[in-house]
Amino acid sequence: MFTLPQYTAPDFNESGFEAAPSVLTSPAPGDGLLPDNFYATTIYPEYFKIENTWQLINAPRMDCAVVIRSGMPFAVEARRVRKGEAVVIGRKEDLSNGVFIHYDAFKESSSGKVQHFAFRTGKSRESSYSRDYDQLYDILRHDREHGSIVWVLGPAVAFDFDARRSMSGLIEHGYVDALFAGNALATHDLEAGLFNTGLGQDIYTKELYYNGHYHHLETINRVRGAGSIEDFVVQNGMADGIISSCVKKKVPFVLAGSIRDDGPLPGVIGNVYDAQDAMRQHIMKATTVIALATQLHTIAAGNMTPSWQKCADGRLRPVYFYTVDISEFAVGKLHDRGSLSVNSIVTNVQDFLINAARSLGVI
Amino acid sequence: MFTLPQYTAPDFNESGFEAAPSVLTSPAPGDGLLPDNFYATTIYPEYFKIENTWQLINAPRMDCAVVIRSGMPFAVEARRVRKGEAVVIGRKEDLSNGVFIHYDAFKESSSGKVQHFAFRTGKSRESSYSRDYDQLYDILRHDREHGSIVWVLGPAVAFDFDARRSMSGLIEHGYVDALFAGNALATHDLEAGLFNTGLGQDIYTKELYYNGHYHHLETINRVRGAGSIEDFVVQNGMADGIISSCVKKKVPFVLAGSIRDDGPLPGVIGNVYDAQDAMRQHIMKATTVIALATQLHTIAAGNMTPSWQKCADGRLRPVYFYTVDISEFAVGKLHDRGSLSVNSIVTNVQDFLINAARSLGVI
Amino acid sequence: MFTLPQYTAPDFNESGFEAAPSVLTSPAPGDGLLPDNFYATTIYPEYFKIENTWQLINAPRMDCAVVIRSGMPFAVEARRVRKGEAVVIGRKEDLSNGVFIHYDAFKESSSGKVQHFAFRTGKSRESSYSRDYDQLYDILRHDREHGSIVWVLGPAVAFDFDARRSMSGLIEHGYVDALFAGNALATHDLEAGLFNTGLGQDIYTKELYYNGHYHHLETINRVRGAGSIEDFVVQNGMADGIISSCVKKKVPFVLAGSIRDDGPLPGVIGNVYDAQDAMRQHIMKATTVIALATQLHTIAAGNMTPSWQKCADGRLRPVYFYTVDISEFAVGKLHDRGSLSVNSIVTNVQDFLINAARSLGVI
Amino acid sequence: MFTLPQYTAPDFNESGFEAAPSVLTSPAPGDGLLPDNFYATTIYPEYFKIENTWQLINAPRMDCAVVIRSGMPFAVEARRVRKGEAVVIGRKEDLSNGVFIHYDAFKESSSGKVQHFAFRTGKSRESSYSRDYDQLYDILRHDREHGSIVWVLGPAVAFDFDARRSMSGLIEHGYVDALFAGNALATHDLEAGLFNTGLGQDIYTKELYYNGHYHHLETINRVRGAGSIEDFVVQNGMADGIISSCVKKKVPFVLAGSIRDDGPLPGVIGNVYDAQDAMRQHIMKATTVIALATQLHTIAAGNMTPSWQKCADGRLRPVYFYTVDISEFAVGKLHDRGSLSVNSIVTNVQDFLINAARSLGVI
Repeated sequence: MFTLPQYTAPDFNESGFEAAPSVLTSPAPGDGLLPDNFYATTIYPEYFKIENTWQLINAPRMDCAVVIRSGMPFAVEARRVRKGEAVVIGRKEDLSNGVFIHYDAFKESSSGKVQHFAFRTGKSRESSYSRDYDQLYDILRHDREHGSIVWVLGPAVAFDFDARRSMSGLIEHGYVDALFAGNALATHDLEAGLFNTGLGQDIYTKELYYNGHYHHLETINRVRGAGSIEDFVVQNGMADGIISSCVKKKVPFVLAGSIRDDGPLPGVIGNVYDAQDAMRQHIMKATTVIALATQLHTIAAGNMTPSWQKCADGRLRPVYFYTVDISEFAVGKLHDRGSLSVNSIVTNVQDFLINAARSLGVI
Repeated sequence: MFTLPQYTAPDFNESGFEAAPSVLTSPAPGDGLLPDNFYATTIYPEYFKIENTWQLINAPRMDCAVVIRSGMPFAVEARRVRKGEAVVIGRKEDLSNGVFIHYDAFKESSSGKVQHFAFRTGKSRESSYSRDYDQLYDILRHDREHGSIVWVLGPAVAFDFDARRSMSGLIEHGYVDALFAGNALATHDLEAGLFNTGLGQDIYTKELYYNGHYHHLETINRVRGAGSIEDFVVQNGMADGIISSCVKKKVPFVLAGSIRDDGPLPGVIGNVYDAQDAMRQHIMKATTVIALATQLHTIAAGNMTPSWQKCADGRLRPVYFYTVDISEFAVGKLHDRGSLSVNSIVTNVQDFLINAARSLGVI
Repeated sequence: MFTLPQYTAPDFNESGFEAAPSVLTSPAPGDGLLPDNFYATTIYPEYFKIENTWQLINAPRMDCAVVIRSGMPFAVEARRVRKGEAVVIGRKEDLSNGVFIHYDAFKESSSGKVQHFAFRTGKSRESSYSRDYDQLYDILRHDREHGSIVWVLGPAVAFDFDARRSMSGLIEHGYVDALFAGNALATHDLEAGLFNTGLGQDIYTKELYYNGHYHHLETINRVRGAGSIEDFVVQNGMADGIISSCVKKKVPFVLAGSIRDDGPLPGVIGNVYDAQDAMRQHIMKATTVIALATQLHTIAAGNMTPSWQKCADGRLRPVYFYTVDISEFAVGKLHDRGSLSVNSIVTNVQDFLINAARSLGVI
Repeated sequence: MFTLPQYTAPDFNESGFEAAPSVLTSPAPGDGLLPDNFYATTIYPEYFKIENTWQLINAPRMDCAVVIRSGMPFAVEARRVRKGEAVVIGRKEDLSNGVFIHYDAFKESSSGKVQHFAFRTGKSRESSYSRDYDQLYDILRHDREHGSIVWVLGPAVAFDFDARRSMSGLIEHGYVDALFAGNALATHDLEAGLFNTGLGQDIYTKELYYNGHYHHLETINRVRGAGSIEDFVVQNGMADGIISSCVKKKVPFVLAGSIRDDGPLPGVIGNVYDAQDAMRQHIMKATTVIALATQLHTIAAGNMTPSWQKCADGRLRPVYFYTVDISEFAVGKLHDRGSLSVNSIVTNVQDFLINAARSLGVI
């Protein structure tokens, strides 16, 4: 049986913590501007000594400024800092600036089960993944009940019949709490719902339809005509597919715009910083993130995902971040984050999804 | 000596053209909506018979609706079509709907030099590229004087000392008329100007600096403090680098936002559809496009680039589109456009740039 | 239910065939040497008119000379042609040299099921593979009873716990009639049997053992000490694993030497041309070939595999050749053969094997 | 000006060395068999205490047994150990078995120039390579005069006009002391010399010749007819190309056979263990090894190349090992060796060669 690794809270009665000064701050010199020597956050649990009390960061994510609001530390993207706000300064890691980064927050469980996540080597097509799959299934079963699972999907997920069916099955069976994607994934998936094609090619037989590229443009036009994706799905009585399953199960999805979009579909967020904000609302609750075959959305999600999450009972737990991609280069990019919980699988996401759906019994 | 391939205009006195009917149109049913059976454009020169006269498309790009404005056909993205506008309908390719797609527009030059561009096979790391390089240099020398060259850059271009120097050299010597990139390329390049690093790693020695990741965040904060990239470059007297060279030579650059952005730098266009519009202004003048190591920006540019351009004297000429990427998969994606002038080179863009800069004598 | 596509025999009563001359031959000028204008074979069924009778090639494989022995045509590698043998000459494809290449030998079945195999496009990570898997399972079930299935394995197959288990399961359940691999695959697999590691890393937990690289060298030394792989497996009572399953089920395996070998294990064929000969003995009976994650052995097998096989009842049937690799470049190399029956899947072979083993019910 | 890093010899007067026992040995139990607990060599300088004297290993390469012959330690592949020979046993690294592995043999030069080689991170397409190129050119200029440079070539090197010309230039100008390749590289190169094609495709224009695949088979047949590559080159007066340059400059080449060979050409070594022996003769003298676009030959060369070489004056120096490949996966495989002097460049070898040839002034 899967159990979460235990959080080891720092002992702030130790002399080093006692002796440390409170943080220093400088006022932000303008909206969206940081003072000299600003401190930037990490993915780890971080504590800030404020008026002699060590406080855990709020709304954690890396590469943020730390702003003291109502006496509490918040991770705030620089673009959202307002002129005059108190911004923590100093970049030392020896407590001398009132900051403690808790790199070693999670004890390895005695079962050894979670040890793997601390295992630091490059992953390649020749790495063994049997255990990664087994652990992932344990985590998914656990977090379906006791967490929040965010999926990040590249467009390829909708191009294959069984992969699309598997993803729908995962949604239908409660393994998806939020979905991030772009205009392309949603368009391909809805095209598959209308025509059984992706960019005009049959997603099972690979047959290329005459004038099949119109399937793509037609799909966009029809959804725009319906006014919203939700209305389109209902009006067309679409029963299967990734987006339809989200609509049916009321799973929220964030569709972020990009410059390669056609259309876009209604609901796609054209301003990328608004899209970041919408994604972060879900990430702030996430306990597991699974990112498939998209560098753009995976790195975006990775940027805003801390290595830990506060549970309902106040304890901290790890956030598990899986990235699955066929390219060693792509998964390597995420590894550079250095998270204790990033885990990569180098494979075709079609097979990943089919494996997962079968193992979890959803197809 | 390089000469452009000759355009073969269709002979509209031929009986098939004479007999063809004028186009039919339907009114757009709403803003951003297309009527049933709408026609969608290609990358080729297309002629529309309007009031018995064959007219060449205006503002060409593929996957657009064709709207008749003042009796002339315009390629218009669906999102920019207004309610009630006259939209061409019908999807046949046999003149029966008043449309002629001129697939075979450019005669091969007698020298055989341009024959290659019609050559249709997959490219891989094992393809021969000597001639592609030679032809590209010819085209660049030609279009520096008689065309407009757009470069599309991925972030990796700024990570290497000699590659960055080569790109700067190309700008300084007039081989760049416009530059497309994202927030990351500009940030990495300006970080290199300030610190000689990219994401905290020395771009020559690869030395990792202590707290080097702050170089990235510092760069963004300082540019934001300066109010604009141009002011930042001037205030800091930055003499080298890609962005600095653009500022110095007044080469326009379009920085399109994406959800993985930090910052962003001032001037980055946060709304991706506004960014598309800004890019398209330059593409409408482009005669050669060179896209390096970025799937996102390459596909975005590819979507909006037709295979031809109208010269000042009214003749048509090809638009040359080169894509350079280390991944066969990435260059294959562009090939699916089927353009007669898309050309791919599978290599590391660092070497591509150093080769090009040396061969053109700019470093 | 799966049925093989039907063979359409040429009608040699047609006038073109009647009018065609018999083949011309020249004597081989030396051992392993071919005369000027020698004819070279293809992967297709080829007929040679000899003394006024059209005869099907014997021992077919591509890139061979055709030697007339006892009045019958044989495909013979140049190195095996003996001085003075009668070698067919002429390179035209219009019957004028007495040769007919039957490119269009297999009718598409009315069910359309096999149509796919004629489908000619590049494959990538974004191709749909659901149907390819389904068809492969049909073929494997059919050929287990009515054919001969050859597997070609790269070393990575032994590095993952579940993939290795899956491959063993396929062997145990009769889906493997012969196995081709190198010294590395066999060594890694036997190391896994002894130590549960591959190159010293646990194939399930990925734990790196202290001095683990000795596992590899120890394995080789112990097998060499046993005198043969078969004796080693029996002496050690090895119950699982790829090689052990072959030994248990008496499935022949050909281990071809390469310059990167350690050891080698006893039974590895050090002379590569002898290894080719040993492989070809099995390929001459093969009806399906499945090659996983090895460029070297896949291309070697591809070189010697014709697109067709003669059944016991004298009818011809297709030979199905699947290649599975995570790299588009690798699978593209095989496609250049142009076979009507080569089929590629771009994925990690671990997932391929686990998918296959589950779908066929062997794990 | 480039200077080699200095070797720091161990001080065997230190107490640890004095106190250490001499090595223990066991007799080899059979030809090609090692005793229990055999010691296996590394790539580093290793010293063995024999009759109370610390002696440097002879004929170093990794993964070998150490055999005491005439009182001196030799690295011997297991397959070459004879029954009864004295084989060093014990696997500790604390001197307690009379073995000292000198991991830290080369002081970093004060100029910092060589520091890079100790730099341990993964390489990718986005790594900076400017300095790697600069250092390589320094090393090549140095070792042309004071070392022995071995090149290891994959077949792709002959497929491009300028790359092939560059490689020839490097040979003609003395930058190549030995060349390792397979049957394919030599065949492609000689085909280019005869027909200006590679596998029937023009290596400059990419034109596909009618019946072009015969160029490949014809080339093999003609060389076989000539009796040897050398005679073929002379008889045909071939003036350019990789193999011709080797013949002209009397640069030895080792062509190792593989199961994917056609032919083979005369001179190709069909037994792979004999080929290993032939390669090792050159590696034992090598001071720099450059391996381009071949996993098979690169790993084979890597297996047998130690990290150091003894100079004429008895001092030790590093052996520089460069591997250039377009795939991160391929270069990563070599890195797993952990050598202090392996250096990787991720790019297309065509550009690598053209860069190198221009920078060294040979084209």
